[in-house]
Amino acid sequence: MKTRLFRNSLSACGIVGHHHSMHARFVFLSLILFSVPAHAAVSSPSEIVAHAPQSAWRKVAPDRLLLMTTADGKRIMIELAPEFAPVHVANVVRLARAHAWDDGAVIRVQDNYVVQWRVRDEKAALPRGFVEHPPAEYDRPVPGTGFRSLGYPDSYAPMAGIAAGWGVGSDGKRIWPAQCYGAVGVARDMPPDTGDGRELYVVNGEAPRQLDRNLAVVGRVLVGMEELAALPRGTGPLGFYTDARQNIQIKNVMLVADLPLAEQPNVQTMRTESHSFGAYVAARAARKDPFFVHAARGVALCNVPIPSREIR
Amino acid sequence: MKTRLFRNSLSACGIVGHHHSMHARFVFLSLILFSVPAHAAVSSPSEIVAHAPQSAWRKVAPDRLLLMTTADGKRIMIELAPEFAPVHVANVVRLARAHAWDDGAVIRVQDNYVVQWRVRDEKAALPRGFVEHPPAEYDRPVPGTGFRSLGYPDSYAPMAGIAAGWGVGSDGKRIWPAQCYGAVGVARDMPPDTGDGRELYVVNGEAPRQLDRNLAVVGRVLVGMEELAALPRGTGPLGFYTDARQNIQIKNVMLVADLPLAEQPNVQTMRTESHSFGAYVAARAARKDPFFVHAARGVALCNVPIPSREIR
Repeated sequence: MKTRLFRNSLSACGIVGHHHSMHARFVFLSLILFSVPAHAAVSSPSEIVAHAPQSAWRKVAPDRLLLMTTADGKRIMIELAPEFAPVHVANVVRLARAHAWDDGAVIRVQDNYVVQWRVRDEKAALPRGFVEHPPAEYDRPVPGTGFRSLGYPDSYAPMAGIAAGWGVGSDGKRIWPAQCYGAVGVARDMPPDTGDGRELYVVNGEAPRQLDRNLAVVGRVLVGMEELAALPRGTGPLGFYTDARQNIQIKNVMLVADLPLAEQPNVQTMRTESHSFGAYVAARAARKDPFFVHAARGVALCNVPIPSREIR
Repeated sequence: MKTRLFRNSLSACGIVGHHHSMHARFVFLSLILFSVPAHAAVSSPSEIVAHAPQSAWRKVAPDRLLLMTTADGKRIMIELAPEFAPVHVANVVRLARAHAWDDGAVIRVQDNYVVQWRVRDEKAALPRGFVEHPPAEYDRPVPGTGFRSLGYPDSYAPMAGIAAGWGVGSDGKRIWPAQCYGAVGVARDMPPDTGDGRELYVVNGEAPRQLDRNLAVVGRVLVGMEELAALPRGTGPLGFYTDARQNIQIKNVMLVADLPLAEQPNVQTMRTESHSFGAYVAARAARKDPFFVHAARGVALCNVPIPSREIR
């Protein structure tokens, strides 16, 4: 039987990137960084990722990687973002080490918005050192982050780019993590509450970037997002499950550093300062391989996921 | 137990829109249309939708509404887009009337990309009038579509806005439907093939707008997207199911106009020329209700879904 494909997948199949059309943009945009040498081989985003040298990859440190296992055996791994929300992230680590999410549950799945989960018992004693009222870690100054603009118009921020390996919006002075597909944030009530980390969410649809700088981003899902994304949508208001029996039970959440060395997964992200990443961005933003009739004029920040992989 | 919410849902809960910050943009942007009278009540997007007068809604004509029912009883309704791809849409209607999708199947679910389904038998005789090689209906001239820019920067096109009730990109001369969450398109092989409609896909994640003007958009899911979005991801290349037993069986696909009048569902979309829609866009683009610490500077086209509802 004939199988009709799109060839322009994020995760597979080759598309030939075409860089010529970007040069005009490079002239008039102020902060342009992801250019590609004229002699570079023309490759698709997925080919660039597949062929990137080992030097283009960075292993995620075990002390910034969470492993969630659901009661039915699904594995989800979340890279933490202490660069952006250090106090919230420290709370999350304390909660994991206190086993606070063991026997917790996913309680909300709102279509094209978020999946949300919480600790087993929100009235339980808090771990030592836990900060009940973290500061508003919604953005931070640019200096020291290596911020680089993608060079394309952004619908939400004056600039959109990469800083410290994360997709961010920026006004040139401060940067903030973008609430893209797979971004993990801290649910909260009304400000000045910023949430304390006991209830987290992950974006499961079109990036709700109106949340940028309004909820603390503590990480991103690197492994298992396809499992969270396929959970049944809740039928209550805001996608909450209406019956606790619908909740998706969490077996446990632990810091990978706390696993025996031999059991620690090896999860890697592409170095955003690498040539491979620059070529990947350029190819994502302008595709003219034979499948394409019209190359786009750019790419949205949240349509440039940072490549990641698990080595097993 | 305390329930921590985001209040800024697309589908529920009030957020107070704030229009002041938009006026500055209105001055320097060339095509600005979704302004709101100064005396308008300040309301959230969902409040605007909930309180929109009946005159702000349009019933989707039964002859442009497809009803797909899966073998396990899920209902999905797709509004067709003959304004943009008349030959492809006519093919789709002919296939529905020929029962070509009855006992068809969803064969592919790629996370954060597309769900794809096909007719029962791709070698079956084609319906009378079927166009095996439709033209490239990827874009069309602006005149007659009532195109209006949203007035915010777009990462893909010179302008992004609304035309004939659909979200579109535009270069000022032509418009093309944006491949947003819920957009239904025609899978194809290499150009000049444009696909014939027997295999369709729907976007299930961050808008892959690099597909704009590269695959024919024939409609959008108005009912049941949350069912398609929650389907298990395929584990084969490009998210194809690796075993036919994993396929999601389709019971049938029919044109609503072919149902007995009493059985025809009443699905409505908001009139994009209505005051309510203008207020909705403005509120989506600038939220300053008490939950929000920072209002966005705009909104992406695919984060402005056209409100729709089923009256039951």
